[in-house]
Amino acid sequence: MSLTLETSTAKPEASTGKSLVAMVGAGQLARMTHEAAIKLGIRLRVLAASDRDPAVLAGAEHMIGSPESIEDLRRLAEGADVLTFDHEGVPPEILSQLENEGIRMAPSRAAKLMAQDKLHARISLDELGYPLPPFEAPVDSGAALRFAKDHGLPVTVKAARGGYDGKGVWQVSEPGELESLFENPDNGLILEPTLDILQEIAVIVVRSTNGERVTYPAVETVQRDAMCREILAPAKVSSSVAARAQGMATDIAEDIGATGILAVEFFVTSEGLLVNELALRPHNSGHYTMEGCVTSQFEQHLRAVLGLPLGLPSLVSPSVVTVNVVGSHSGGDPRRNLGMALGIPGAQIHLYDKEPRPGRKLGHVTVCGQDQEPTRKAALMAARVLEGGRP
Amino acid sequence: MSLTLETSTAKPEASTGKSLVAMVGAGQLARMTHEAAIKLGIRLRVLAASDRDPAVLAGAEHMIGSPESIEDLRRLAEGADVLTFDHEGVPPEILSQLENEGIRMAPSRAAKLMAQDKLHARISLDELGYPLPPFEAPVDSGAALRFAKDHGLPVTVKAARGGYDGKGVWQVSEPGELESLFENPDNGLILEPTLDILQEIAVIVVRSTNGERVTYPAVETVQRDAMCREILAPAKVSSSVAARAQGMATDIAEDIGATGILAVEFFVTSEGLLVNELALRPHNSGHYTMEGCVTSQFEQHLRAVLGLPLGLPSLVSPSVVTVNVVGSHSGGDPRRNLGMALGIPGAQIHLYDKEPRPGRKLGHVTVCGQDQEPTRKAALMAARVLEGGRP
Repeated sequence: MSLTLETSTAKPEASTGKSLVAMVGAGQLARMTHEAAIKLGIRLRVLAASDRDPAVLAGAEHMIGSPESIEDLRRLAEGADVLTFDHEGVPPEILSQLENEGIRMAPSRAAKLMAQDKLHARISLDELGYPLPPFEAPVDSGAALRFAKDHGLPVTVKAARGGYDGKGVWQVSEPGELESLFENPDNGLILEPTLDILQEIAVIVVRSTNGERVTYPAVETVQRDAMCREILAPAKVSSSVAARAQGMATDIAEDIGATGILAVEFFVTSEGLLVNELALRPHNSGHYTMEGCVTSQFEQHLRAVLGLPLGLPSLVSPSVVTVNVVGSHSGGDPRRNLGMALGIPGAQIHLYDKEPRPGRKLGHVTVCGQDQEPTRKAALMAARVLEGGRP
Repeated sequence: MSLTLETSTAKPEASTGKSLVAMVGAGQLARMTHEAAIKLGIRLRVLAASDRDPAVLAGAEHMIGSPESIEDLRRLAEGADVLTFDHEGVPPEILSQLENEGIRMAPSRAAKLMAQDKLHARISLDELGYPLPPFEAPVDSGAALRFAKDHGLPVTVKAARGGYDGKGVWQVSEPGELESLFENPDNGLILEPTLDILQEIAVIVVRSTNGERVTYPAVETVQRDAMCREILAPAKVSSSVAARAQGMATDIAEDIGATGILAVEFFVTSEGLLVNELALRPHNSGHYTMEGCVTSQFEQHLRAVLGLPLGLPSLVSPSVVTVNVVGSHSGGDPRRNLGMALGIPGAQIHLYDKEPRPGRKLGHVTVCGQDQEPTRKAALMAARVLEGGRP
């Protein structure tokens, strides 16, 4: 047993040695970060839109405010060891200003921009030599139509900023529709051809403010309605593809100077691995780590942003599957179905305490097992029951 | 995959289906129950002595009050689905009154008394035919001296009520000392001979208000200064001893009608397995279940007291060791040593956010591994570092 004698770069609460992390946002990611903070005896203070936000209902110390208000962010960061994020919604110019004022931030403004602006990320990753899908940010509708002609319709249109869970992404099959989308030349939209995607995989890398780094296994993500619905760990890809994805994600973390969690999403295509997009915060593709790995992504994020030693990222069982619980059109509330879902052996149920709305992520289920098929079946069944379906 | 179609006996929050559990006490057991409540989207309301109590600092909904005040307990239970406990400190006569008022309680007053009054527990278990250490509650000092003469000195003297962590337990070697302890005939003290204890083991049983029941593996508990310091799972005892302990614990749960967690502590002696004492609440000997079993004792306790289906109690790795972090005489604060301890690979560190005092439980460390020796070594090292020692 060797002991790494890391010392924290955090400036902890004088009397107790207890650290304070300030997090912008109070959604489910902040809620699960709060669980990790309780375990380690770390204070978490979140910026919430309302006192019904998931992290607030979990009892995280909170301030009501706006991620677009520099005053609110200054108050949030006051006395904290570090400022971090559960979403992408702080305007980059405000992050610049806060950084100039000396507020310690993890990730930095520059690294965070790689998740906030997809066009910036694509251009930067392209310059760094990473393999990407063909893309263009057309200056006008003529350029958009030429891209469609070169690559064929349908094309995918993505908002450079503000998209999530299928919002800000459109499949366009009609030239007329494309023309009208690109009437405004500065609309912040990116064009991508329809790709022959065999699989989508993701890799989580954690990089501490000390530069220490660990990389989680490659996992497969299954999307439905452009929203991540399942995470299958480890990804059923060849070991060379898995290693290449892990290597690329690790290199990206170094190249962009990420701190905290970096999630890198990849497309596996017939032409090889392509980088899709980045997130610089705990990420849906890492929820499986809570029961499925020695160290959860939420605990790692806290360790990393405070400059504490990182934990082991290894899987604790041969197969781990997470299935998201998503609000159904029938409007059922997973909280009402908890009893039935808990009857499924091995189902680790996480509910976010959110008002149910169709298409809204309300929770997730993780199952750890020996083989992927029965493990996935159990997780899917529990999620379906929580969503109000029959087992 | 079979699905148990259990229905909850809880009367959940009308609008959301969310349950509310009221817990008397706000120490580390309530704090870790709060972590489980966040996961499941259940509300936990605790009765705290101060707003610096561990569960309050973790953000559990709380009321400041006394466990000896019936008014405070009534307010705590108001609107809750069930009332439960993180300690033994509610006077039995108050529990009777609350039960008569129709407040749902898990465990019941009668079952809880088996943990609150050691003499009552010994007499009841004796009548039920469980093997116990020889014991007596002497009516006067003459009877105490006769017991010492029959069994030899030193003897162990235990307070029937209010003892914990070595408090309320004395080794007595001098007849004069014994005489003075038993001067008052109604002192609530129990005498026990010095036993030839080979090992101490413990078994956790969970019994739901629906009567569903699961039993955890037998674990070894290692005491120092009469306080539990280590939990080694599974216990290194023969499979017949383990099975006998599990069977007895399960039978006791049924016999006394336990609901929620029941922890049964046993002495392994040359004359066989003897029941030492019971706890009817999440228990130190079950902290290893948080990372070491599919379902933690804290989640099980919530499920059980709400009549929700129970989870699997199986170990997730061949060896799991938990070591308590106890305040040292040098007065170091584990929160200051977190960074160094996190450098020990695989150490799962739980800090309770308590002011350090010598002999006070301030946290615990769990390590999951293949073999007991290195697993135990890593957990001991992390605990020692947190206590302010050298690795």
